Amino acid sequence: MLRKFFSRKLAVIALALFLGLIGGVNSASAHAPRYVFYFIGDGMGAAQRQAAEYYLRAETGVKDIKLRMNQFPVAGINTTYSADSLVTDSAAAGTALAAGYKTNNGIIAQLPDGTNVKSLVEAAEEKGMGTGLVTTTRITHATPAVFASHNSNRDAENEIALDYLDSGVDFFAGGGYRHFVPQNWDGGKSKRKDDLNIAEKFKGQGYHIFLTEKDTQKFRNYKPSGQEKVFAAFTYSHLPYELDRENDHTPSLAELTAKGIEVLEKYKEGFFLMVEGGRIDHACHAHDPAGSIHDTLAFDKALDEAYSFYQKYPDETLIVVVADHETGGFGLGFGDNYFLKMDQLFKAKVTTADVLNEGVGKYDKDRKKFFDFIATNLGLDNLSLDEKIKIEQAMDLIDGSQKDAIATYAGYDPAAITVTHIMSERANMFWTTYAHSGTTVPLSAIGVGAEALGGFKDNTEVARTLFSILEFKPTEVAFTHPTSLPKVINY
Amino acid sequence: MLRKFFSRKLAVIALALFLGLIGGVNSASAHAPRYVFYFIGDGMGAAQRQAAEYYLRAETGVKDIKLRMNQFPVAGINTTYSADSLVTDSAAAGTALAAGYKTNNGIIAQLPDGTNVKSLVEAAEEKGMGTGLVTTTRITHATPAVFASHNSNRDAENEIALDYLDSGVDFFAGGGYRHFVPQNWDGGKSKRKDDLNIAEKFKGQGYHIFLTEKDTQKFRNYKPSGQEKVFAAFTYSHLPYELDRENDHTPSLAELTAKGIEVLEKYKEGFFLMVEGGRIDHACHAHDPAGSIHDTLAFDKALDEAYSFYQKYPDETLIVVVADHETGGFGLGFGDNYFLKMDQLFKAKVTTADVLNEGVGKYDKDRKKFFDFIATNLGLDNLSLDEKIKIEQAMDLIDGSQKDAIATYAGYDPAAITVTHIMSERANMFWTTYAHSGTTVPLSAIGVGAEALGGFKDNTEVARTLFSILEFKPTEVAFTHPTSLPKVINY
Repeated sequence: MLRKFFSRKLAVIALALFLGLIGGVNSASAHAPRYVFYFIGDGMGAAQRQAAEYYLRAETGVKDIKLRMNQFPVAGINTTYSADSLVTDSAAAGTALAAGYKTNNGIIAQLPDGTNVKSLVEAAEEKGMGTGLVTTTRITHATPAVFASHNSNRDAENEIALDYLDSGVDFFAGGGYRHFVPQNWDGGKSKRKDDLNIAEKFKGQGYHIFLTEKDTQKFRNYKPSGQEKVFAAFTYSHLPYELDRENDHTPSLAELTAKGIEVLEKYKEGFFLMVEGGRIDHACHAHDPAGSIHDTLAFDKALDEAYSFYQKYPDETLIVVVADHETGGFGLGFGDNYFLKMDQLFKAKVTTADVLNEGVGKYDKDRKKFFDFIATNLGLDNLSLDEKIKIEQAMDLIDGSQKDAIATYAGYDPAAITVTHIMSERANMFWTTYAHSGTTVPLSAIGVGAEALGGFKDNTEVARTLFSILEFKPTEVAFTHPTSLPKVINY
Repeated sequence: MLRKFFSRKLAVIALALFLGLIGGVNSASAHAPRYVFYFIGDGMGAAQRQAAEYYLRAETGVKDIKLRMNQFPVAGINTTYSADSLVTDSAAAGTALAAGYKTNNGIIAQLPDGTNVKSLVEAAEEKGMGTGLVTTTRITHATPAVFASHNSNRDAENEIALDYLDSGVDFFAGGGYRHFVPQNWDGGKSKRKDDLNIAEKFKGQGYHIFLTEKDTQKFRNYKPSGQEKVFAAFTYSHLPYELDRENDHTPSLAELTAKGIEVLEKYKEGFFLMVEGGRIDHACHAHDPAGSIHDTLAFDKALDEAYSFYQKYPDETLIVVVADHETGGFGLGFGDNYFLKMDQLFKAKVTTADVLNEGVGKYDKDRKKFFDFIATNLGLDNLSLDEKIKIEQAMDLIDGSQKDAIATYAGYDPAAITVTHIMSERANMFWTTYAHSGTTVPLSAIGVGAEALGGFKDNTEVARTLFSILEFKPTEVAFTHPTSLPKVINY
């Protein structure tokens, strides 16, 4: 019986399957994927991913629950160092992930000598694909910026906003309208020093514009009828942390992603959509475990949107999940103990990163008010004497304006940091730095070409592999192996 | 022309290749690898690997230098939690990696209900392969123990030693003769409470015996002439850290590995060799960055021995590099800074983990002597006032026998820990815990079947995949997915 199956036809199929697998290309297709998702968890190292997964496990009681990203078949491990430091910033790491080149910290899609390097989004534009940038930060922040602008200074966000006008990117969604509206704008505050109304210019180019929180519902109701363009910036600066987000005020990252898919799937040549979980990083800079966990979970829910799309077009879709670096030196262990405990983190109704440092929970020299606030909003209604003393000592620093001591908190509020450290310690988690760390970060991928992204790779190699899988033309500067490093300092 | 190739024969070959690849088997061979290396870096998380690689890079000035393990084509990311905690110990993690089952912390190759689970080494024995256990710890320590013994208590090392007698393991090499020699032994100290001379019994079984440091040269000169057996334990307890090792006293991990290969390659049915870098973990418990780096580099050199062997037999060899867990919450970043700096670590001539905590550098209330020692041996001849005060405060604790304060150092010497924290800070690295952490750990692999080990997997899945690749028969207890968890506490 079996013999008759070894027909010529089967030989062709088997050989095609074999060649497909040899080439690291998924299924029988040897072509470049039509639909590409590039998910970047800013600051999302291995510990950030596991903290979120274990929180979910504790919350749901499902022992083998996994993040969507942890279910993808391909895993990679990526080095992140920049051209001038073993500890990268998001601009240099983003440039590596977007264009395949090392550059110095602070630089947006340029080499240290000022040469512009082409991003994957720019290459996708050249091929006529639809393109999108989605983020929870200001849309002009480093990670989205490296895909659609070039600047020697990541802080030049007004210039970056202007660059976006010529970028051809079809779908922008995030925060930070302040760089797109003129000074003295009547709809809200601006950071511009000129009268340029970039949002208005986008409108002139045919973009559907959504500005400020009041356009949230309009954005939700919007349905593209053809190959349309969107520019959406809902907040003055970053979008709120997921933990602080009020659903009726701003869309979730998953909603932004879903809308991006809805818009871009109308594009006949396929699309390239970058989605950044940008505030995982911010939470970890500020040592906020609950903030990091909820933003990582929100990022994973956005990934679910891409995964649903993948399930419809598995032979034409590629999803890649990377991180630009780890933030905070987040350790899932503290003291001399062998456990993690989520109870305290379940009680967090607000971020410490934002609400305690700058928001309504900030210590304003009213001690009772502060203790009441953390009791109600963080479940800290049972402080030990030791914990209470630590908070009082931080308050003393603030009350006494002790600048040198306050400076050791890296710009954060000493009371807020002390509280978040108590939250961390109770979860048996802790932090080594207010900055980024130099460890490797995990990559996950699924879909057409995904296998080629696995293994131990430098971040520049991730981008270069993508250029190759997507049959994009990279920058004319020669790709040397592993990177074109101008110089490496700091070690 | 092509048409005639689509013969029945080609269909068979192509289909076999396809099925081979589907099964994750390397090259055209669908057979199990004959030669298997299982390298376990105890406590070797992503940060431990990168700290070592970046140290090497700084030391050699070669910008793109990579650890051997970081050059392997297959990467995986593994969860490590045990049956009773999200933060595992080495016994539970070892049991998972050796046998494919979750168990409680502290248990050696048994389920929590006392059921023994079969290790890969035991399965290899069943198939008639040569087997070996190599480590830098006591050979009865948790990680080697899970491969060749079963015990509800990892500390029962005298019993574990006795188990080894019946294990059939052909090559043992490491430290810890104390559990193999009778009480009142004339060759050195013993930990046994009986007159059992296990080493002598090994000899009776035909093993070549190497005991204590004085047998180092004899071990080096030993050449197996046929299918021989070896038992080697060079030190009373663990082998020294690589940084403290005096070459003429004890062999390196690379030497032990090379000798293991020399012995086991005589075995006609192939071999399974486990090699543990066991003291990376110890260095990280004690927050010693230089100790961790040098032991990781020594582990990587041992891996070079396996890789050279692989290059001779690429179609018959599999090398897998895993970690049982991360130790220390090692963060490659500290404070508010974006750099790593190796200068201070270059100056370390001894470990702080051992030499300062228990060795000749231990603070014995002679302050000048201690400061002189760290100046000479750690390059700390330029302490800032702040650093000096911190060390003096630690000395005050010791001098004043302040037990509560001393207890916060997790059993370590406060002066030693303060010094190692200064070393860490100067490198801009730091630690969150004296215990293990719950983050994922990286896996690297090369050779026959390696692809199947890639991706995001639980540690039990790593072992189960190996059982499958090696065509070993696992324990008769049903493998459930993902693990047979009795219960999970602590969150």
